[in-house]
Amino acid sequence: MAKKGKKKVVKRVSSKASIRKKELEGPKEIAERIKKIAMEMVKEIEHGKNPRFKTKLRGRGNVVFDEDLGIITLGDKSATRTFLNIAHARKFLQTTLVMSKTYEYLTHNKTASIREVYYELKHTIGNTKENTFEDQRESDACIVDLEHSIDTIREKLNVHANPKGTLYGDITLVDRQHHNDTFNCLKLGRGGWSIMSRMEPHEIEIKKINAKYVLVIETSAMYERLVEEDFARKNKAILVGTGGQAARGTRRLIHRLHFEHKLPVYVFTDGDPYGWYIYSVIKQGSMALAAHSSLLACPTAKYIGMTLEDVEEYGLQNVTEKMKPTDIKRAKEMLAYEWFKNKPWQNELKKAMQLKIRIEQQALANKSLEFVAKEYLPKKIKNKEFLP
Amino acid sequence: MAKKGKKKVVKRVSSKASIRKKELEGPKEIAERIKKIAMEMVKEIEHGKNPRFKTKLRGRGNVVFDEDLGIITLGDKSATRTFLNIAHARKFLQTTLVMSKTYEYLTHNKTASIREVYYELKHTIGNTKENTFEDQRESDACIVDLEHSIDTIREKLNVHANPKGTLYGDITLVDRQHHNDTFNCLKLGRGGWSIMSRMEPHEIEIKKINAKYVLVIETSAMYERLVEEDFARKNKAILVGTGGQAARGTRRLIHRLHFEHKLPVYVFTDGDPYGWYIYSVIKQGSMALAAHSSLLACPTAKYIGMTLEDVEEYGLQNVTEKMKPTDIKRAKEMLAYEWFKNKPWQNELKKAMQLKIRIEQQALANKSLEFVAKEYLPKKIKNKEFLP
Repeated sequence: MAKKGKKKVVKRVSSKASIRKKELEGPKEIAERIKKIAMEMVKEIEHGKNPRFKTKLRGRGNVVFDEDLGIITLGDKSATRTFLNIAHARKFLQTTLVMSKTYEYLTHNKTASIREVYYELKHTIGNTKENTFEDQRESDACIVDLEHSIDTIREKLNVHANPKGTLYGDITLVDRQHHNDTFNCLKLGRGGWSIMSRMEPHEIEIKKINAKYVLVIETSAMYERLVEEDFARKNKAILVGTGGQAARGTRRLIHRLHFEHKLPVYVFTDGDPYGWYIYSVIKQGSMALAAHSSLLACPTAKYIGMTLEDVEEYGLQNVTEKMKPTDIKRAKEMLAYEWFKNKPWQNELKKAMQLKIRIEQQALANKSLEFVAKEYLPKKIKNKEFLP
Repeated sequence: MAKKGKKKVVKRVSSKASIRKKELEGPKEIAERIKKIAMEMVKEIEHGKNPRFKTKLRGRGNVVFDEDLGIITLGDKSATRTFLNIAHARKFLQTTLVMSKTYEYLTHNKTASIREVYYELKHTIGNTKENTFEDQRESDACIVDLEHSIDTIREKLNVHANPKGTLYGDITLVDRQHHNDTFNCLKLGRGGWSIMSRMEPHEIEIKKINAKYVLVIETSAMYERLVEEDFARKNKAILVGTGGQAARGTRRLIHRLHFEHKLPVYVFTDGDPYGWYIYSVIKQGSMALAAHSSLLACPTAKYIGMTLEDVEEYGLQNVTEKMKPTDIKRAKEMLAYEWFKNKPWQNELKKAMQLKIRIEQQALANKSLEFVAKEYLPKKIKNKEFLP
């Protein structure tokens, strides 16, 4: 086992071909896999055996960094739950309820939020005072188990958490599950399109893109600034506003823009541990969702800013903020992560810890409102001034 | 002065005609008003007098409930700040900086987030070590002062906070400040349109609406449910998802849908103090933004649910949640608010406090996913089963 803060590094956990296959799986394939697990349980029961449910072991002990693919992923440890085990029985029952419900969603073309799943399944078991679920955390855990068991993401189970994120630029989408609505995200005023919780190919088709790259932006205000400056039109860019940490649907969209359309992805965040973390989750995935990186991450993404070099180059010393002790602690942790172990990032993190300052995207307004759109970003992109 | 939790009730603070005028004010009128205040300062200085800045007194001591208009508003107490006063000088300087900057935005057709205002204006005053602003709270406070001084909202100063909220339905908008983009919010797939921070008439024109009412929805997941069920099409409804407490842009949109297009507004929240508060802010406005209710509130809005009667009628006892002590405390406070002082609300609040339960919108999924769209809402709307 690796030391705290470090993850085991391995070569190639999944093949690119198997990832590509996972990527395109639709409701039919996923429903089949749920059915298969259920049928195995039935068989076990019919043979007087103890029915089992197998899922991947999660948590740091099974998280690895796949160096070849450049993503955080899960190793091959698994966990098995059996019905005839007093410690497992309740959770086993709950898992089968979630299996049955998501199977129903998939075969009836319905989708639901994870909270709805909880409420739909909560009931008192006949002639007892026992409820199927007492708390949403219980059903959420079963959803996670099922995702890992059938090796897919919850969005492909037609289940989702809250959406967040906005899309702007010359990209035409088709909602194949909803009147085949077809719309161009450059023509929705400055508001832009609200990115959905589920951005699966069989739901949302990316019909046409006219762009040279994707610019992912941490803050809503910077996203609005770039829309107002007409940055997308003038630079042929697709703008994705994450509004803080990117939601799953937003990460899935960024992933698809890169893998389906070969667009480079540049990530623009505040120059601080929270911003760096947002970047690293978009690029390599996260430890919490390690099993899903192959569908959510974008390993070739580049970091465009803010950097401490910007502070010097543009004389922004006066508009930096002090790092809090928690920021410094976080930066120190990041220094040890495998995916920040390259010279440019080690320098950046060490410099931040030494100067104890952070710099926000919007600090660029100190130059002028237009500066970020007219000088800062175009110059960085032209000269390929990125952190890896 | 009224007792804690109660607000003074007054008849008619502003006339409807003056509100209507405020409503339509564009950048030109607002810029003129800023200029007028600045010119008065200049005159005072030229006459060797102490320049003054007058704004409205805020806080509970000057908050009143205008019973005729049905909105929370400010009374007529004001506060004056002078430059030649050591306690006021710094803030006076800051206020003039904000005046000058927003004047520039308005006359150059630029907009900015409140964080950008801070960063744009922050600098060290020549030959001193004194910064104009040390913290965004300082510039935010000046923006609020200016709003109250010239009697408008920050959005009309071309300044805004973060956007939140989503729009779906047969409504055609034109972004008059951005390529005259024209789009119908029924045709953007299930994502819907991301509501902007500023929804002023000179920026976003509501060109056409084909709907019978506006349904405002607290949770993103319920909003998504209703979109998936095609509720907007089937019921000719405009759906506004607030994602929790409604942002200012969202409140402004709801207000405009009602006042410009005479659409009834129904608000659908969780049946708990947080949900009731979301409703009351949409309907009467809030104490914190009392001066702006006439542009943000929608006094004829109705509350469609969730109610405790729903729990009984639909047998949802099993999917209620326990109220926390803080919920009960909050409900008790609300009981004393002038705008909840009507029989139906008094009954509802008392019942909740007695049963100590809350009921979420998504608990309706316990009946079936479609139940809310097929039965619950249509029945309530048909029978006008609302709380006032």
